[in-house]
Amino acid sequence: MKQYIEENQERFLNELLDLLRIPSVSADSRFRDDMQKAAAYVRESIENAGADRAEIYETAGHPVVYGEKIIDPALPTVLIYGHYDVQPADPYELWESPPFEPVIKNERIYARGACDDKGQFYMHIKALETMLATGNLTCNVKVMIEGEEEIGSSNLGSFVRQHRNILACDTILISDTSIIANDVPSIETGLRGLTYVEVEVTGANRDLHSGVYGGAVANPINVLCEMIASLKDADGHITIPGFYDKVQELSGQERDALNAAPFSLEAYKDELQVADVRGEAGYTTIERTSIRPTLDVNGIWGGYTGEGAKTVLPSKAHAKISMRLVPDQHDDEICELFTRHFESIAPPSVKVKVVPHHGGLPYVTPTSSVEYQAAEKAMEESFGKKPLPTRGGGSIPIVALFEQELGCKSILMGFGLDIDNLHSPNESYGLFNYYKGIETIPLFFKHYAALKK
Amino acid sequence: MKQYIEENQERFLNELLDLLRIPSVSADSRFRDDMQKAAAYVRESIENAGADRAEIYETAGHPVVYGEKIIDPALPTVLIYGHYDVQPADPYELWESPPFEPVIKNERIYARGACDDKGQFYMHIKALETMLATGNLTCNVKVMIEGEEEIGSSNLGSFVRQHRNILACDTILISDTSIIANDVPSIETGLRGLTYVEVEVTGANRDLHSGVYGGAVANPINVLCEMIASLKDADGHITIPGFYDKVQELSGQERDALNAAPFSLEAYKDELQVADVRGEAGYTTIERTSIRPTLDVNGIWGGYTGEGAKTVLPSKAHAKISMRLVPDQHDDEICELFTRHFESIAPPSVKVKVVPHHGGLPYVTPTSSVEYQAAEKAMEESFGKKPLPTRGGGSIPIVALFEQELGCKSILMGFGLDIDNLHSPNESYGLFNYYKGIETIPLFFKHYAALKK
Repeated sequence: MKQYIEENQERFLNELLDLLRIPSVSADSRFRDDMQKAAAYVRESIENAGADRAEIYETAGHPVVYGEKIIDPALPTVLIYGHYDVQPADPYELWESPPFEPVIKNERIYARGACDDKGQFYMHIKALETMLATGNLTCNVKVMIEGEEEIGSSNLGSFVRQHRNILACDTILISDTSIIANDVPSIETGLRGLTYVEVEVTGANRDLHSGVYGGAVANPINVLCEMIASLKDADGHITIPGFYDKVQELSGQERDALNAAPFSLEAYKDELQVADVRGEAGYTTIERTSIRPTLDVNGIWGGYTGEGAKTVLPSKAHAKISMRLVPDQHDDEICELFTRHFESIAPPSVKVKVVPHHGGLPYVTPTSSVEYQAAEKAMEESFGKKPLPTRGGGSIPIVALFEQELGCKSILMGFGLDIDNLHSPNESYGLFNYYKGIETIPLFFKHYAALKK
Repeated sequence: MKQYIEENQERFLNELLDLLRIPSVSADSRFRDDMQKAAAYVRESIENAGADRAEIYETAGHPVVYGEKIIDPALPTVLIYGHYDVQPADPYELWESPPFEPVIKNERIYARGACDDKGQFYMHIKALETMLATGNLTCNVKVMIEGEEEIGSSNLGSFVRQHRNILACDTILISDTSIIANDVPSIETGLRGLTYVEVEVTGANRDLHSGVYGGAVANPINVLCEMIASLKDADGHITIPGFYDKVQELSGQERDALNAAPFSLEAYKDELQVADVRGEAGYTTIERTSIRPTLDVNGIWGGYTGEGAKTVLPSKAHAKISMRLVPDQHDDEICELFTRHFESIAPPSVKVKVVPHHGGLPYVTPTSSVEYQAAEKAMEESFGKKPLPTRGGGSIPIVALFEQELGCKSILMGFGLDIDNLHSPNESYGLFNYYKGIETIPLFFKHYAALKK
């Protein structure tokens, strides 16, 4: 298969670049048509890879693309999951090249979605093509690529419930995560959950003159800042009552294993150009980004933000706040705790509104599972090195739902790197990683089929 | 003169409406040409009123309009000050009628600048016309209308220094303040000073994925909120070291006099639709908005503020913060104290930048002064009621500068009302107030000339 991949290297890349040229931003309705274009492009690719069927399923939101290749009902079935939607690209001015005009620079593909997740799910389509073209397919394959991952997969739940029979499988293979380094392969055995809310604080019924009313009427921005500040104590612990009640504390042994992963705090700080890191007291940076929950303000706005100075006492202030969750926190429960607490700390001089955006459960795949074993062997074979188990800080809410609805585990075999600038300007994906993924995925199928025998 | 005002009522109004149609927003460079148009309009009005000369003086920023009528060097000279620039009109969507298309509704003029300050300074030009047309001018008159009051009058200082001789006068008459009610006339004997800064907090060198880095890297929005929250304690006292050192504490007697002004807290809360007021412990609402300094965030922004949800850990967060100052606080000194303190409370995980925007000194005119006596008599004659001395919460930085450069006091005889929505959508000015001002101003000249004899 290596030979086939090499022979088709250039085409495999150009097909991805064409996909990256479609600005499929799910969060922004201005890109609705591009979402349709992207879905159509994905459907066609699955068909061209040699699938028996490939279809677009409309949903209440953006469409889901589904395709399959059933070679023998007796063989195990692997469901591939990915998403063709991308994060908004703004701030555009910080991109060195336009986000939707991919360029190759020093062996990397620069574009929004290059890694997250177009580059990563497209590896699977090319791997499928490779397995079929070379007669090496050892499992039945189902491919489901959705268009709402970056906005919480709000319609995928009902889609999966509706099509439980079509999607029936033995395991789910997902490439939407990272490895530690190109010479240090790793597999994510856990993901953090997420609760995302938008808050609004209202003071007076209109914007006021800060001279005439300042000092006597609540300023919703000051109040919002005070409320947000109070959500963490001096040690960086989140102060929402009950927030930590269901957090799984890892054993010293488990924590040691986690911290054994190669990590240089100095290199980390240098790369981010920060003088110091900042997080929950008593935990390492690796732990803070994997086994501990967080609370981050993702956006804030209020009052006059234009050129120059305006002495206004605004009527409203807003913030988008997200919390990353760990086992066994439940997103709905945390959202509820947040809402109740946030409303309770509002002074009587303001009104507060909390609107839940979306959420997802945290997730863990045991290293003892067959899918983990298969992924470990596959990576060991392609990288020449046994991969390390890691815990991811990000969230793929859907994996917990898959377990509920389809009754099987997901394996998070991603090929990205921390330097890929996911969700940031100048997102990129290494050519090495793209081709290494296409090479490794068929090996997963081989070992998975063997282990399931 | 009353008769002349009545006969020209309609023209006096239409001339103001034409001025209000010019969107002279000084803070926003997109309106640069309109600033020129407004200046030209003002110059012409002064000329048409019967001035000896009326000219436009270019500055490093927006032009100053100056005109004068010298009838007898032996007579006292009154300098009229006002500003033709207005606050930005946004948010536009909250205006019931377009901000620069004035409409008359229930006896009020609705437009940006209707009261602040176009409506108020234009009264003086019409009063001048009236005095000249009816042979009632009792003082020499100088008129200086600037175009940068809403952005801190940054170039007026050097203009006044440069033209000290031209501007030489005995007192300065300004209408840019309010009365308590149409049946409760009042004169502002004091103004708060102002220090306005913009702050920037920077975390990592780029926007990050809140899942991958959340919990380990400083979030500049969270940090900015914590820093802003820490600027006040639970009692609403400002925590900046030295902030209150020079604040004049009023005597119990002075405070009683101040609180004697008719004021209903219930009506105040109802009008703003707030369940409670909020301010410094130990002071009444009247005191909080007049004799006490404040700290308000006028604008805040950072991260993703668009539609939907973006799980970004932003690189930067910004805020515009202003402090209202009272005698004897000095704006430069307070700006310095703020900057030093704000930088000192920044955690090592972020970088902080503080950029001073502009400022102004607080100001007081004694009720014993000749100009106050003249204004008191004038209002008593036109309103049929002795005006109350009040302390204003707003800032007209230039009055302190006038005292320094021209060596004379300013008298703040304004005719606005708190319901005029200054700096807010749907700004308005009462027709009663407009005409009452035109009627009262000549009476000030009459009494001032008499008292100076």
